[in-house]
Amino acid sequence: EIVQALIKKAPEAKQDWQGKTFIITAGPTREAIDPVRYISNHSSGKMGYALAEAAAHAGAKVILVSGPTQLPTPTGVQRVDVETTEQMLNAVQQQLPNCDVFIGCAAVSDYRVAEVASQKIKKEQNNQPPQLKLVQNPDILQQVASSEKPPFTVGFAAETENLKANALRKLERKQLQMIVANDVSQVGLGFNSDSNNAIILSKDSEQSLPTMSKHDMAIAIIDAIAKRYFNTTAN
Amino acid sequence: EIVQALIKKAPEAKQDWQGKTFIITAGPTREAIDPVRYISNHSSGKMGYALAEAAAHAGAKVILVSGPTQLPTPTGVQRVDVETTEQMLNAVQQQLPNCDVFIGCAAVSDYRVAEVASQKIKKEQNNQPPQLKLVQNPDILQQVASSEKPPFTVGFAAETENLKANALRKLERKQLQMIVANDVSQVGLGFNSDSNNAIILSKDSEQSLPTMSKHDMAIAIIDAIAKRYFNTTAN
Repeated sequence: EIVQALIKKAPEAKQDWQGKTFIITAGPTREAIDPVRYISNHSSGKMGYALAEAAAHAGAKVILVSGPTQLPTPTGVQRVDVETTEQMLNAVQQQLPNCDVFIGCAAVSDYRVAEVASQKIKKEQNNQPPQLKLVQNPDILQQVASSEKPPFTVGFAAETENLKANALRKLERKQLQMIVANDVSQVGLGFNSDSNNAIILSKDSEQSLPTMSKHDMAIAIIDAIAKRYFNTTAN
Repeated sequence: EIVQALIKKAPEAKQDWQGKTFIITAGPTREAIDPVRYISNHSSGKMGYALAEAAAHAGAKVILVSGPTQLPTPTGVQRVDVETTEQMLNAVQQQLPNCDVFIGCAAVSDYRVAEVASQKIKKEQNNQPPQLKLVQNPDILQQVASSEKPPFTVGFAAETENLKANALRKLERKQLQMIVANDVSQVGLGFNSDSNNAIILSKDSEQSLPTMSKHDMAIAIIDAIAKRYFNTTAN
């Protein structure tokens, strides 16, 4: 049964997160090709930083594990800087034993280059353009959700097609408590933008968030987590 | 014969660039893999922006063709934003007929992905990680230097090994008037740093610049260009 919650109701459900610890990942990761080149993506980190700020504001201890961004650390937030997906996983695992809520908001590289060149690849030394052999990176969200004592685990799905269906598959496959799905193909929204719209999905609920600032969306998402978290742990 | 010019002497050689037009490329380029992922490099654009500022300050009209950076446009500089190497080449070619000095400071992607995916590549739809087939990008510097009426053309060589030898080969192969070689393997210098050291090389001269701010280095490079440019065109 799907409950259509209205965003207007969310602020009433605000909870005090005092004594709880969030780990939030944010930004892109970068996977080296050689010492100067890398593979990355268009994530600015704004959504993850806004979530860290909102959770800290709601009283939580917040550890922000961040890929390379140009953003200042929100007040009261403890930030750990990483570059690659593997570094991000390590940083998350170190903090995981004391984590109550994990939000995987980083746009992690699903793949990394199989063999990183130790010196800059020079085109004049190659008759043919090099083929980049990729290997799959560890899945941070899945590893957190399937850890021994998993925290309340929230994922993000940035999709360019079949938004809800792709997000629901990800929720189920990775055994998440919640997933925030947004369509990054819309111009002016999502990646690198200050605004966003999204659907918050869980096993049995769905909440549509209209276009709003990432600041306001972060507050709505932390509220949505609170509603479920405090219900779930009270059972 | 190699003339070892000292940086202390450079300011005396300052020339008035009034009436002359510079095109300066700066920053990285980005080559899409799919709508969210791309290949790029660690260039911050700082050196190119400092050069644009120094040339404008010395009286030149400056067109800055810039890849994605986080930097403000220097005062008096006309900026054209691009993302890919091909876009950068197009922007340069449009401005080229009125160009007196071209400085290729951008860290352009030598390669782009052969087939850009129109939708986000989803790892669960691929049993095997994808192979990225790359193709060579056009060589902006070479095309400028071999154009019908080439401007005074200055290249940059960011190397991780065999600095001077690699830079001299690039100078000759691309028929440049000057090349600025810097070692990007040194921690705290070059890419994304505020300081740099470099060797300015031409067919018959060599000038070592010690570690200095990119602002000061830009002034030294514009001075070095002036010395050669006004000698050459006076012949």
